[in-house]
Amino acid sequence: MTAFPNAPYYQRHIFFCINQRDTGEACCAQQGAQAGFERCKAQVKAAGLTGVGKVRVNKAGCLDRCAGGPVAVVYPEGVWYTFVDAHDIDEIVEKHLRGGHVVERLRLPAQIGR
Amino acid sequence: MTAFPNAPYYQRHIFFCINQRDTGEACCAQQGAQAGFERCKAQVKAAGLTGVGKVRVNKAGCLDRCAGGPVAVVYPEGVWYTFVDAHDIDEIVEKHLRGGHVVERLRLPAQIGR
Repeated sequence: MTAFPNAPYYQRHIFFCINQRDTGEACCAQQGAQAGFERCKAQVKAAGLTGVGKVRVNKAGCLDRCAGGPVAVVYPEGVWYTFVDAHDIDEIVEKHLRGGHVVERLRLPAQIGR
Repeated sequence: MTAFPNAPYYQRHIFFCINQRDTGEACCAQQGAQAGFERCKAQVKAAGLTGVGKVRVNKAGCLDRCAGGPVAVVYPEGVWYTFVDAHDIDEIVEKHLRGGHVVERLRLPAQIGR
């Protein structure tokens, strides 16, 4: 984008919602979000993708798409994912975070919100 | 970006590091990060910018640029900021989150890391 010419600090930055809602409503924290975050962080590290100019794996508060939880979003692409298990996470790491290809089968449908 | 043709769920997504490090090292939480987050969220809401297709203000865990704390990053642009007070936050909201223009005076220098 010509308006933002600087190299990005991270090539890809993935944020996992690990929000815990105390009201009894559905939330990512009840759906394995923490395990997904930890798996992703470990796999990215094991693949040597961690660091400046590469990949950062982050916790985030509520991303407000609770109906699709657990969710994560990859920037700068703005691609949203929902995942079930470690296999899903591994596929996101290998195909998207390393390879730059969207994992279509795990993509969060556009209409899914809170 | 041709590889990612879908409209973004949020036009702009800002993440504030509100990480609390317990080791005595510098961290954003000691530097007014929570106040910055809350100010930003309130100002974005007051400006009617909150929501799908518009702006989302999020908490995040450690963004690993602690030396410049408190820090925040705006995606999809990948523009990083450091801020001191409510005036700084208001300028980020008005110029960048609403107007799409980078606030150069608040930009985190590229070499600032952990």
